Amino acid sequence: FPTPAFRRGSQRRPEKNHKPRRIMTDKAFAPLKPAEGWHVLHLFYSINHGQWSLLTDKERIAAKTHLAELVQEIRATEECQLLTFAMVSPKADLGFMLMCADLHDANEFEKQLTLSLGPEVMEPTFSFYSMTELSEYTTTEAEYVQQLAQEGAGPGTPEHEEKLNAWRTRMADYNKHRLYPVLPPWEVMCFYPMSKRRGGPGENWYAIAHEKSKELMGGHTRSGRRWHGKILQLITGCTGLDDWEWVVTLLAHDAMHIKGIVYEMRFDEVSAQYGEFGEFYIGLQLPLDEIFRRVQL
Amino acid sequence: FPTPAFRRGSQRRPEKNHKPRRIMTDKAFAPLKPAEGWHVLHLFYSINHGQWSLLTDKERIAAKTHLAELVQEIRATEECQLLTFAMVSPKADLGFMLMCADLHDANEFEKQLTLSLGPEVMEPTFSFYSMTELSEYTTTEAEYVQQLAQEGAGPGTPEHEEKLNAWRTRMADYNKHRLYPVLPPWEVMCFYPMSKRRGGPGENWYAIAHEKSKELMGGHTRSGRRWHGKILQLITGCTGLDDWEWVVTLLAHDAMHIKGIVYEMRFDEVSAQYGEFGEFYIGLQLPLDEIFRRVQL
Amino acid sequence: FPTPAFRRGSQRRPEKNHKPRRIMTDKAFAPLKPAEGWHVLHLFYSINHGQWSLLTDKERIAAKTHLAELVQEIRATEECQLLTFAMVSPKADLGFMLMCADLHDANEFEKQLTLSLGPEVMEPTFSFYSMTELSEYTTTEAEYVQQLAQEGAGPGTPEHEEKLNAWRTRMADYNKHRLYPVLPPWEVMCFYPMSKRRGGPGENWYAIAHEKSKELMGGHTRSGRRWHGKILQLITGCTGLDDWEWVVTLLAHDAMHIKGIVYEMRFDEVSAQYGEFGEFYIGLQLPLDEIFRRVQL
Amino acid sequence: FPTPAFRRGSQRRPEKNHKPRRIMTDKAFAPLKPAEGWHVLHLFYSINHGQWSLLTDKERIAAKTHLAELVQEIRATEECQLLTFAMVSPKADLGFMLMCADLHDANEFEKQLTLSLGPEVMEPTFSFYSMTELSEYTTTEAEYVQQLAQEGAGPGTPEHEEKLNAWRTRMADYNKHRLYPVLPPWEVMCFYPMSKRRGGPGENWYAIAHEKSKELMGGHTRSGRRWHGKILQLITGCTGLDDWEWVVTLLAHDAMHIKGIVYEMRFDEVSAQYGEFGEFYIGLQLPLDEIFRRVQL
Amino acid sequence: FPTPAFRRGSQRRPEKNHKPRRIMTDKAFAPLKPAEGWHVLHLFYSINHGQWSLLTDKERIAAKTHLAELVQEIRATEECQLLTFAMVSPKADLGFMLMCADLHDANEFEKQLTLSLGPEVMEPTFSFYSMTELSEYTTTEAEYVQQLAQEGAGPGTPEHEEKLNAWRTRMADYNKHRLYPVLPPWEVMCFYPMSKRRGGPGENWYAIAHEKSKELMGGHTRSGRRWHGKILQLITGCTGLDDWEWVVTLLAHDAMHIKGIVYEMRFDEVSAQYGEFGEFYIGLQLPLDEIFRRVQL
Repeated sequence: FPTPAFRRGSQRRPEKNHKPRRIMTDKAFAPLKPAEGWHVLHLFYSINHGQWSLLTDKERIAAKTHLAELVQEIRATEECQLLTFAMVSPKADLGFMLMCADLHDANEFEKQLTLSLGPEVMEPTFSFYSMTELSEYTTTEAEYVQQLAQEGAGPGTPEHEEKLNAWRTRMADYNKHRLYPVLPPWEVMCFYPMSKRRGGPGENWYAIAHEKSKELMGGHTRSGRRWHGKILQLITGCTGLDDWEWVVTLLAHDAMHIKGIVYEMRFDEVSAQYGEFGEFYIGLQLPLDEIFRRVQL
Repeated sequence: FPTPAFRRGSQRRPEKNHKPRRIMTDKAFAPLKPAEGWHVLHLFYSINHGQWSLLTDKERIAAKTHLAELVQEIRATEECQLLTFAMVSPKADLGFMLMCADLHDANEFEKQLTLSLGPEVMEPTFSFYSMTELSEYTTTEAEYVQQLAQEGAGPGTPEHEEKLNAWRTRMADYNKHRLYPVLPPWEVMCFYPMSKRRGGPGENWYAIAHEKSKELMGGHTRSGRRWHGKILQLITGCTGLDDWEWVVTLLAHDAMHIKGIVYEMRFDEVSAQYGEFGEFYIGLQLPLDEIFRRVQL
Repeated sequence: FPTPAFRRGSQRRPEKNHKPRRIMTDKAFAPLKPAEGWHVLHLFYSINHGQWSLLTDKERIAAKTHLAELVQEIRATEECQLLTFAMVSPKADLGFMLMCADLHDANEFEKQLTLSLGPEVMEPTFSFYSMTELSEYTTTEAEYVQQLAQEGAGPGTPEHEEKLNAWRTRMADYNKHRLYPVLPPWEVMCFYPMSKRRGGPGENWYAIAHEKSKELMGGHTRSGRRWHGKILQLITGCTGLDDWEWVVTLLAHDAMHIKGIVYEMRFDEVSAQYGEFGEFYIGLQLPLDEIFRRVQL
Repeated sequence: FPTPAFRRGSQRRPEKNHKPRRIMTDKAFAPLKPAEGWHVLHLFYSINHGQWSLLTDKERIAAKTHLAELVQEIRATEECQLLTFAMVSPKADLGFMLMCADLHDANEFEKQLTLSLGPEVMEPTFSFYSMTELSEYTTTEAEYVQQLAQEGAGPGTPEHEEKLNAWRTRMADYNKHRLYPVLPPWEVMCFYPMSKRRGGPGENWYAIAHEKSKELMGGHTRSGRRWHGKILQLITGCTGLDDWEWVVTLLAHDAMHIKGIVYEMRFDEVSAQYGEFGEFYIGLQLPLDEIFRRVQL
Repeated sequence: FPTPAFRRGSQRRPEKNHKPRRIMTDKAFAPLKPAEGWHVLHLFYSINHGQWSLLTDKERIAAKTHLAELVQEIRATEECQLLTFAMVSPKADLGFMLMCADLHDANEFEKQLTLSLGPEVMEPTFSFYSMTELSEYTTTEAEYVQQLAQEGAGPGTPEHEEKLNAWRTRMADYNKHRLYPVLPPWEVMCFYPMSKRRGGPGENWYAIAHEKSKELMGGHTRSGRRWHGKILQLITGCTGLDDWEWVVTLLAHDAMHIKGIVYEMRFDEVSAQYGEFGEFYIGLQLPLDEIFRRVQL
């Protein structure tokens, strides 16, 4: 076969009649939708400004227009969400958080985003694949009924049904937000992966009883609630999917609150004894044109 | 001697009369077939789109045709299997799982796959060499005979021979699938390497008695069985061959099941106390032309 | 869409009519000022001399002038500070410490600094995002009042109010310097990130009582005070913002004092038992033109 | 001084009158031969096929001829040995094991091998410098005499001298093979570095008594002996010379035996409790022309 | 501002009228000399032979001449020393050990050395900044006086003053060699960084009493003395200056002695229990022209 030649310095003509890529229409493959929840991809990139500077002004405008259109297309796709970020510090320049019901969509859009400004312009620096999931540590209906009984509103009392129904609505709402979150445009985003420690005796999360871990998680959750209105938190699972067990996405209006909640929680027994944390990334949620200006594209 | 010159920017002519590489015929070397089992190579690559964009349309078609033909050739080779994947997240774009009886074949095909789209187009991001192997923790015939005796079907009873023969057939079948697996085209593939912990007292797998480890592995296996029909698992060994001790390949129809089984098993004592896990890769098993489209080749 | 072409060897014209970037005027976005303190970015770079050598003398002068003007602009911006360093050892060549009240400013200036000498000339080697913060371990007013009482200057005594007011002034001054520091041009700068250990029993900072940790930090602070006049220290927090929990910036007139204080403190119980340290960087605080000469630009 | 220019894209003429490098003749420096044993360099490389593809056919032939001649020269040099490998998996393509009595020779040949196919064609991926050495754990003559006495062949008995002399010959032979090994052309080579653990109480090899460690090593050696004829093992020392303490080279006819011996030994107490292992590399010992074909040069 | 253009493939004219860099004359900055001792930089590089091959023969000669002149200049500078090495194994090709009284000199020379063969020819692979320092574990005068008294040569005895004066001379000499060492041209150099362990109870050097640590270091020193005449050792400190706490430089005539001393010392309690070691580098101390030949420049 004719080996495609390797040419570092050869001149490459811009492709004129680029045929549009198949765009999520006539799919040949059955969708890969999970039994519940969405696929989530956090995607952080550095801009290769050397490569970018080789483009003509016209090519640059075309590239930015292309990314802008892709962002629109993803946002217009059913059961897909996309957040865009200017990243803080040279660890990354540009970031996306992509959520899709169908793994084929997530995979296709992810590959398109990476190439959207042209080959080698966006260099992936860190990425993570996770899925939205229900919490294992929420109160069960049985537990709530027992709690009602203790409060004198057990089965048979007048307020029982009403309270139970209200609880069911609350829980359904809570679970829906865990599985199919709609994230608001708060300014500051914090991303980090984490795992539960699997160390020696007394340091192994997976070896302690579920009651104990549920109790610890309960305290952890109460800590989190004190930041209501200042911090919006989404935890997605990635055991088996990527190199850590969970991914945490925090949204805030003030970076100081991100520092505050993460520091405060580090004293919770569940974090102090059982938490292992990966790299932290901070992004600013901004419209795409401001991101382009910010990262000097 | 005339030092071959180093030229970053020089123009390279496509090779016209490329003589076909020797293709697994007239081998000069005796095959390197293990006493039992197959050689397995997991190969994950990133596409260098900068390099790819330097090729002409004609060269691109030739390159893709060449890889397609190589895939066919490997699949047509006796005692060789090849699975192809579009990888999820920017950690990798393209993936292969190659199984061969002869290590010369595996080595030759692996080097050819890496170069198949032309020099520097496929950049290896992660790879692993392992071998299929029998499990050490399956029931022995002596154990089964004892079990039959306990069930009142000991030697001499009418059903003994029949049950024992059925068991032998089952075990032979099971072992054949461990050593010479035929993997189905399920959509989602998960790959990760793992080792058994060699820590201090109570945390060292290799220091506990075989009975204890067999018992622990038995519980582990039963956990796995609950996912029958949802998850297909292949464990191959790489102690001495690569940087971890085992490699796990999971196939599923829903990524949520991969997350589910790996998370659930993490609570098994054998994983909780003795498991160390490497990087996780997720791929989508697809035909080559869809993979090309997906990764934008 | 027209894919922007990838061209390794194409000739790029210097941009003539480069329109000036928006420079911190007419901001479209509300400032991201924390409730208290400043955003801090430590930025260390290697010079890509290969890339630099491709520039004409005229382009080089323009590049250095541009960076000099940017430094002036940042220093002229309200609530922004910038320190410049020639870095010691090949780990880095050039360094900045940037402090801004508004995270938008910090993010915008950081991206501009990285590109200030042209694309790919300054390659980030290490960076850190932290925020100034108050110490949790300072004496509270209640504690000081109690201390006064023990010294016979309790509430009601003649000197009580005077001493208390003097203490309040001292504390306000101290806190102002922690939150809004003005760093002097001492010659030698040392930077390193650190975290508190979260290990097993007796090795977990986050599991010990606040009184104990306050006492330990008190001893640590007293150690530090012995270096008064030789070492100026600033501790900024990055839990949740970057990969460690705190960042330490030391200024000195003699590198031996940096070695001295860090070594001596390593024997303090708080460091010996609970400190984990990241990479250490040494820079020389110099005017920009001397830095240019030093790193051979 | 005139700075040598940096030119990424400039055309480079092949050097015509390349004067032959000094080839181990008229040495100006006294040889660096150790008191006993040889210097050993394990050298593993990836082929940069992009760079290779820029060479003309003529240059390629010249490059391969040059490496072939260098291999011949090394093998013809007194007290030098060289093994050549095609490496398995994309971790490396090409490998050498170089043994020389004189460290100047080893250093000179190593630098020449790396450049032998032209600049930037062979990229080092992993290398190791070690020295052959005697085992500290062999039986001493005093121990053997004592053993003979226990067997009724103590000093003064008729067979004593004969047995002792036979033992001396065996030991001299064994030691000669440890210090000056001649490695056979077995097909499969496994390389890995290792260290003894220096952990807490009960996990620190260097803190246990010599008798205990000798006993443990004795068991380890007996395990190894069971693989006689299937596995040939060479252990060389690198404490103080490179990043681990020992380097293990295994030769086999079947990769399964490599997996087998390393796995089996992991259960030996000395490995289970005290062994730390580095990266594993597998190579196929082949003639150079087959290696060229295999790695597609 | 006019962004300096990025041009991968553009042709760069050699600079004709290169104005000589300021060479340690008319310094504008007060010297940064420590209260005692010298600044030490260990600098190890790989040669980028691709870049080197782009130079003309004339440029190559100019580059080597430039480095040779720089080496002479550094050696001629007051209170500066420079050792040059050909490095063993592909971990590095070229190495320097630079010692200067003034940190400005060390910084300036270090940047010049890195660029001395032209941009991108010498690629830093490992470097370390440390300072010479006195040992904390030497006998104090009070201890020696006490020792003399025990030997019957206490204050007032005839030989007291004489012995004490001899001791003072010896100590002054020893300390001078620690702070201002003059290193001999022994052939083999070994470099490695190390730290004292800060682990749990019984594994934390910084938590044991000074008497205990002094006793342990005493045994360690005695071990070292047995290698007198074979090994010359220099320990320099880098706590707070670089990523480890000390840097060890060994000189020898036979690499086997380096392996011998480091291995033997690993059994000393202070190393076995409290030592953590970084990467090991071996270099051959040779004249610059032989180094050029050796690394094929």
